Amino acid sequence: MTNHLAALFRHLTVGVYVVGVAQGERRNAFTAAWIMQASFDPLLLVLSVNPQNASYPLLCESGAFVVTVLKAHQLELARHFGTPSLGSRDKLATVQWQPGRSGAPILRDGLAYFDCDITARMRTGDHELVIARVVDGGILDQGASPLVYGATGDMDGSAALYPAAL
Amino acid sequence: MTNHLAALFRHLTVGVYVVGVAQGERRNAFTAAWIMQASFDPLLLVLSVNPQNASYPLLCESGAFVVTVLKAHQLELARHFGTPSLGSRDKLATVQWQPGRSGAPILRDGLAYFDCDITARMRTGDHELVIARVVDGGILDQGASPLVYGATGDMDGSAALYPAAL
Repeated sequence: MTNHLAALFRHLTVGVYVVGVAQGERRNAFTAAWIMQASFDPLLLVLSVNPQNASYPLLCESGAFVVTVLKAHQLELARHFGTPSLGSRDKLATVQWQPGRSGAPILRDGLAYFDCDITARMRTGDHELVIARVVDGGILDQGASPLVYGATGDMDGSAALYPAAL
Repeated sequence: MTNHLAALFRHLTVGVYVVGVAQGERRNAFTAAWIMQASFDPLLLVLSVNPQNASYPLLCESGAFVVTVLKAHQLELARHFGTPSLGSRDKLATVQWQPGRSGAPILRDGLAYFDCDITARMRTGDHELVIARVVDGGILDQGASPLVYGATGDMDGSAALYPAAL
């Protein structure tokens, strides 16, 4: 069942990303769609993150994260990192990754990556806006196309999170 | 000439929108790409706006704006509202629009619209993040596809705004 407001908000175009975090030997990664550029000088990104996310404490403690841009065919990878970890399951055990400057995992099979240092955080409704400076980045697969959030259907179950009316 | 960083940042997927503002009989509209959802409850959007934008004073004074989502073929409309007004030229004179709750112009030929009340603003580098609650919205053309920023090439000349290196 498609909620009317869920359908409306799908008209805002966003991509699909895996956000990696690390602090010491602890690391994690999660799928996110609410990421965009926010400034040219300095080069800043903004990420809207749910503070209930299992990776949120590592994000705050380390003050850093990496963003891997997913490719059009990587729907399963989006689902893999979009499913909360249960118990000791390490979501990173089954993928190739390399550490960014903070140790946070960049997925080697991604389209591009951005390595970011957090500069500010701001509570915004049920999420938090995390502003971050891009300190490193690169294209991992020249010419490939990005996965667009609208192509994931209701994989993340977000349609149920919209109210019935404004 | 494509700047290396401009090419990298194009891997962040965003749409193309016309943001309308009004205060009393004054109104304006501008093209923006840095818009995304930021919260489910309440339903919030975040817009990153350049404070040098001619519409910025009206945005702040009225505390409201509307977002019209452009359709895939509306590149010329994006260019029209992306070109700064010179003198008394009224960018809205040549399009059909209807007023949102604040009087701000919603483009009738758009794909969808969101009518928003500003709840917070935060300086972020050379832009400002404007957080807004969606108080009304609707789909204007069921089944049409959105214009994606990557399809606009360097129409907005933004490639020149990226530094040469991180």
